[in-house]
Amino acid sequence: MATGSEKFPNMHPVEGFRLATACAGIKVTDRKDLVLMEIAGGSTAAAVFTQNKFCAAPVIIAKQHLQQAQPSYLLINTGNANAGTGDQGIADSLSCCQAVAGATGVNPNQVLPFSTGVIGEPLPTKTICDAVPKALQQLSDNGWKDAAEGILTTDTRPKGASVQWDINGSTVTVTGICKGSGMIKPNMATMLGYIATDASIDDELLHAALRKANGKSFNRITVDGDTSTNDAVLLVATGTSGVEIDESNFELFLAQLTDICVQLAQSIIRDGEGASKFITVNAEGANNAQEALSVAYAVAESPLVKTALTASDPNWGRILAAVGRADVADLDVSKIQISLNSVLIAENGARAASYTEEQGQQIMQAEDIVITIQLNRGQVNETLWTTDLSYEYVRINAEYRT
Amino acid sequence: MATGSEKFPNMHPVEGFRLATACAGIKVTDRKDLVLMEIAGGSTAAAVFTQNKFCAAPVIIAKQHLQQAQPSYLLINTGNANAGTGDQGIADSLSCCQAVAGATGVNPNQVLPFSTGVIGEPLPTKTICDAVPKALQQLSDNGWKDAAEGILTTDTRPKGASVQWDINGSTVTVTGICKGSGMIKPNMATMLGYIATDASIDDELLHAALRKANGKSFNRITVDGDTSTNDAVLLVATGTSGVEIDESNFELFLAQLTDICVQLAQSIIRDGEGASKFITVNAEGANNAQEALSVAYAVAESPLVKTALTASDPNWGRILAAVGRADVADLDVSKIQISLNSVLIAENGARAASYTEEQGQQIMQAEDIVITIQLNRGQVNETLWTTDLSYEYVRINAEYRT
Repeated sequence: MATGSEKFPNMHPVEGFRLATACAGIKVTDRKDLVLMEIAGGSTAAAVFTQNKFCAAPVIIAKQHLQQAQPSYLLINTGNANAGTGDQGIADSLSCCQAVAGATGVNPNQVLPFSTGVIGEPLPTKTICDAVPKALQQLSDNGWKDAAEGILTTDTRPKGASVQWDINGSTVTVTGICKGSGMIKPNMATMLGYIATDASIDDELLHAALRKANGKSFNRITVDGDTSTNDAVLLVATGTSGVEIDESNFELFLAQLTDICVQLAQSIIRDGEGASKFITVNAEGANNAQEALSVAYAVAESPLVKTALTASDPNWGRILAAVGRADVADLDVSKIQISLNSVLIAENGARAASYTEEQGQQIMQAEDIVITIQLNRGQVNETLWTTDLSYEYVRINAEYRT
Repeated sequence: MATGSEKFPNMHPVEGFRLATACAGIKVTDRKDLVLMEIAGGSTAAAVFTQNKFCAAPVIIAKQHLQQAQPSYLLINTGNANAGTGDQGIADSLSCCQAVAGATGVNPNQVLPFSTGVIGEPLPTKTICDAVPKALQQLSDNGWKDAAEGILTTDTRPKGASVQWDINGSTVTVTGICKGSGMIKPNMATMLGYIATDASIDDELLHAALRKANGKSFNRITVDGDTSTNDAVLLVATGTSGVEIDESNFELFLAQLTDICVQLAQSIIRDGEGASKFITVNAEGANNAQEALSVAYAVAESPLVKTALTASDPNWGRILAAVGRADVADLDVSKIQISLNSVLIAENGARAASYTEEQGQQIMQAEDIVITIQLNRGQVNETLWTTDLSYEYVRINAEYRT
């Protein structure tokens, strides 16, 4: 199950950034499960990683390598997260980096490893390393769609976004892919995302751009409230367009980057495990972001709200109960207004006088639904995206691994 | 679905506390949906209520009345929560109190109202008030089992606990009932619980006893992380045994009361919506209760842990990932040990060397499972009880109300 269109967008290549996808046979044979990405010299790179304290071995290694050197290669495997694998996991991740370094002549710390899949199983290092030489031969700047397929696990479709626009007569491109469907409540970053641009941006501005765009996209989605051990989003700027991003045009670049990140993040929610609905939750009129997010997450993560959504049942009482348990001091419930799409359903602590059950039922039939909670106590708004909770979610997660 | 034994215990009557149950026809006909309880003069009473800011009208009224007078009657209806009903809900709750007061001669503020059921529908006041006179005629100190049935909603079985023991040669009784199956993460109190004792206890000690017992029982369970708008637990001491509880025997009384509250709270989890497993989560070796509870709730509320449990899959990686996103500063994951029952499954950030998948699978076949997370950083332990997340949970909550 998934929501929205299955259409994969046209992916503009980014000069200086090449991708290859292979079937290594990590968990099953004949499945694309290994992706290699090559970053041309002179590029800059920024990354955000999971805040889960049990972060996976590849996350630990990728963070270290990013501090030590500019990355030349990214190696991504599915079928095994190399998380909860202790010291052996660290050694296994390093072995994979060494395999790429040995075949290309770069230093091992110029290779960043990423893994996704089952937690707690030893990484089949030899299987991965054996597939590296073949992958190297297939590097191409048109490899985005194959790579988008190669990084999937329980996802049902590849996820990509791409944009081109002009800055002072030169064309700038931002193209990215991501994966993720369950164990989705990113904290600083989500599952796996890879975004490249041919703009030229120094390290400091690149990190600022990723941090800000991430805060409005990957950090604003939840499928099940569970934060992965392996989340990572990487942004590479190759500079091959000749366009330099500085303070004069940073906001313009950030707006386009944020748009790409929001498209990618929403594509994860549209393909959320068992998803039959795409839900936007707006918490408005809060005193600060913490308040707004607490209300929005209480609604977005409530199993009772999510099962009402799967049944297309306008059970607004469950939304109200979820708002009431959010962490907001001195909340005056008589001021709160709750809407489905543009229809006011509750105010003054009760059903709105103008609301009819028929209106609610009509709205709930749609695949895309907007829930807005207006707190009427301040000026801060926050938006999240989430899914419903369906039988299919339980089936996927009861059957996965066993 | 439910876990454990269906056997309803032998309920010792409490002199001075009588109960009656009627079929008022609030939502459907011929279902026990109204319970009246009578408290003899000279009793003391203590209560804890939901912390949900959208607390229901009967909760608001019951709190006010408890401050104004010693209660003589408790009136409980199912089929309608009278929550999210604004000013009309307050008026409706008062009307019900007035109906009891008019028929008995007490002041309306000596009646405490309680409601449970669907949120956001107007309370059918006339239906309830019309049934009060008939209920008054049926008051009996043997009415506990009928009352336990009369307060149920999505529950599949009545829940009760009763104990008698001697203090200085006199017999003291504590007997109680509760309901609750979904929207269960009590915060200060759970759904509805009514406990009576024939001991004599002053207001201050009675409140202290309920607060402490509640903190170790109803406040330590979660089905779905959703806090109800109508939670309430009431403790009445009739004093009819002639035994006075004071500081000399308070700890003894508290131990028995806590035991009854734990039995009742666990019976809610055993009958949790869609429950096929009864899970005890121990978080041990924390620096403080906040840390321990954060870890225990992260595991107990993780949809991924709960779906693994429903599949009897020893997917310990999901437990580890949930612990890793808990709100604990500077958590050293290499020190953490995770056990299923008495079998160590993970340590040093990886699978325990001694652990075999067969051991895990054997443990997971059982209905009752204990998950223990030893943090090895302090002396504080906390225990929670929870259920799995099954297809049945989704079915119940997708179908309820519509």
